[in-house]
Amino acid sequence: MKIKCLYTSTEKSSDALYLSGVSIPDDFLLILAGRKRIAVVNQLEYSRVKAHSKFTRVYELNALKALIASRTNLELNCIRVPEMIAFFQESYPGSTLLIPYDFPSGLLSALQLLKLPIEIKEGPFVAERAIKTSKEVAAIKAANRAISYGFRAAQAALSAAKVKKNRLYLDGNILSSECLRNLIDVAVFERGAVAQSTIVACGKQACDPHQIGYGPLKPNELIIIDIFPRSKKSAYYGDMTRTFLKGSASDAQRAIVRSVKNAHNRALSKIKHRVKASSVHSTVVACFEKDGFFTGRDSQSDTFHGFIHSTGHGLGLDIHESPRVSTAENYLKKGHVITIEPGLYYPNIGACRIEDVVLVTEAGYDKLSSYPYEWIIA
Amino acid sequence: MKIKCLYTSTEKSSDALYLSGVSIPDDFLLILAGRKRIAVVNQLEYSRVKAHSKFTRVYELNALKALIASRTNLELNCIRVPEMIAFFQESYPGSTLLIPYDFPSGLLSALQLLKLPIEIKEGPFVAERAIKTSKEVAAIKAANRAISYGFRAAQAALSAAKVKKNRLYLDGNILSSECLRNLIDVAVFERGAVAQSTIVACGKQACDPHQIGYGPLKPNELIIIDIFPRSKKSAYYGDMTRTFLKGSASDAQRAIVRSVKNAHNRALSKIKHRVKASSVHSTVVACFEKDGFFTGRDSQSDTFHGFIHSTGHGLGLDIHESPRVSTAENYLKKGHVITIEPGLYYPNIGACRIEDVVLVTEAGYDKLSSYPYEWIIA
Repeated sequence: MKIKCLYTSTEKSSDALYLSGVSIPDDFLLILAGRKRIAVVNQLEYSRVKAHSKFTRVYELNALKALIASRTNLELNCIRVPEMIAFFQESYPGSTLLIPYDFPSGLLSALQLLKLPIEIKEGPFVAERAIKTSKEVAAIKAANRAISYGFRAAQAALSAAKVKKNRLYLDGNILSSECLRNLIDVAVFERGAVAQSTIVACGKQACDPHQIGYGPLKPNELIIIDIFPRSKKSAYYGDMTRTFLKGSASDAQRAIVRSVKNAHNRALSKIKHRVKASSVHSTVVACFEKDGFFTGRDSQSDTFHGFIHSTGHGLGLDIHESPRVSTAENYLKKGHVITIEPGLYYPNIGACRIEDVVLVTEAGYDKLSSYPYEWIIA
Repeated sequence: MKIKCLYTSTEKSSDALYLSGVSIPDDFLLILAGRKRIAVVNQLEYSRVKAHSKFTRVYELNALKALIASRTNLELNCIRVPEMIAFFQESYPGSTLLIPYDFPSGLLSALQLLKLPIEIKEGPFVAERAIKTSKEVAAIKAANRAISYGFRAAQAALSAAKVKKNRLYLDGNILSSECLRNLIDVAVFERGAVAQSTIVACGKQACDPHQIGYGPLKPNELIIIDIFPRSKKSAYYGDMTRTFLKGSASDAQRAIVRSVKNAHNRALSKIKHRVKASSVHSTVVACFEKDGFFTGRDSQSDTFHGFIHSTGHGLGLDIHESPRVSTAENYLKKGHVITIEPGLYYPNIGACRIEDVVLVTEAGYDKLSSYPYEWIIA
């Protein structure tokens, strides 16, 4: 028998949050043994966790120490987390402790000294998280709905902005990435979701997909806006990207946007239960190649350009979770919630990414995000 | 020689954020060897981290693999994170790898297979974080300033609320914890800080210090409001608590609030460079005992009441960081930024906590938080 063991908080670990069903901000011990779901929490957490969580059993830390002292020959003040884990493991003779890759090394080391049988689980620790319930799907959809208010705010600001000498002005002030990000984040926040590191990146800046963007936004340049807030109520994430341009677009910019939109559609059309995720990714790669968009290292600028990331990722209590939609050899299953976000990045032209969220179904997919794709704002 | 090693992201680890100076959202390798501060990041991060971080050397992941392959007899596709760590460790003959308590177990296990000399550091991994620079102090002060706008919003709502049959009404609607929390969080957000899990807990609910509060707020009951947002710009936290009451207060409620305010003042008066943190804590304990407030387990309700947590904690890039202000045997030093937050919790009366943030100085302290202490709102 394998006994899964976590020592973390629900803030640090979405696995812990998923299994607890309530917020537990301090580190605590979590044990899964067959159908038993056990938590050991401190006195501050005890009443609340006992009343509201999904655990089948909640121990108060000091009460458990006393229990262990009464059943073993250990002194009360020698009983710490490793001894508690040993206590649970020993109550299932022959069992092995299964810990996640990111289990704290200090605790692993203490368990090794106690000579407990331990196995480190590679990959997702609570694999069932990848298959979403209807309640989880609704939570993700709600987070995406909050995002759509962010795009509305952004589009309204870009529409209202005036172009003057390679700058945009809103109400007489220069419209910057920071300013637009703030308008977006406040709009999303008012709808109950917390956006952090919202990307509002213009021109060359957007060619670095982790650059959130700074300084004045410019007319006639592609502006990537990627909003990925977490719902305050449900703790589930939304994740959507649109690309805009204020002013007039060049042929090269139009070609990039057209190719990304086409790749986005083609990728979506591939999605259904039991399809290889990598075949969705390779559809995108093939679309871009057919359109003549090359991916690789640009020797002049020493940066990577083209389609430089994967097609998508699972979305849930983590912004990036299982399954991947990349070159990896996994399959899509009904109940998976994934992003589809092809993009092209060329420092001399600009960058475009379009991202939506879908639920994989038996026959195809249900779209969980909704916002128009018009991108040129006059 | 000890070589410090982290493998994490700046989102998961404030140590990594402190050392990087820029956001690196994907896991990356960080090595501190003497004055060398080295990062190994993927191609997505490379240009941005190279340009903007505090590292003395940034390697792009694949470039480092190629370098290691050229200098060792390892095949390129056998070079992963453990081999990279070995490469750095071996370039300092006789050195030991120092890893934090929460270093990923999966990686520790791989390093153990490579038989590298490893030591796990208990306690703070980047101890110098506890001593704040003037820039950090300013960032914490700014986050607390954002909080004061949250308290203003809360106080305005409580002032405007009408009492009707054991409920509060604002603009005709029942005023709940959720509603007040939202007003606070939006006000704080508009000032550039993200508040999560803001506590707005009334009456008995507030006696569980981790209960964030839910449902209708009630007149004539103590309401704890604890706001601890993170600045979007600086990533530093603020942390302040005030206790309010809408309506009229009982003698027992007045006695609790008076005692907490007195303990708060007495604790502050103890603070200065080289003072034992535990002496600040024991001052609070003594104040409460002198006022006749008992701390311990209430056998009837099976909960803990009285003064059931420590007096304070360090504040910075983490909401709880070094130093502790508790029974532990550490000393306060100038440059420490700590909270002082005595509280009393009695389910039959209610709860009160008052929290401010101070910078420890040679002669005393500088207050980094500011909001009035009036608590009865008519």
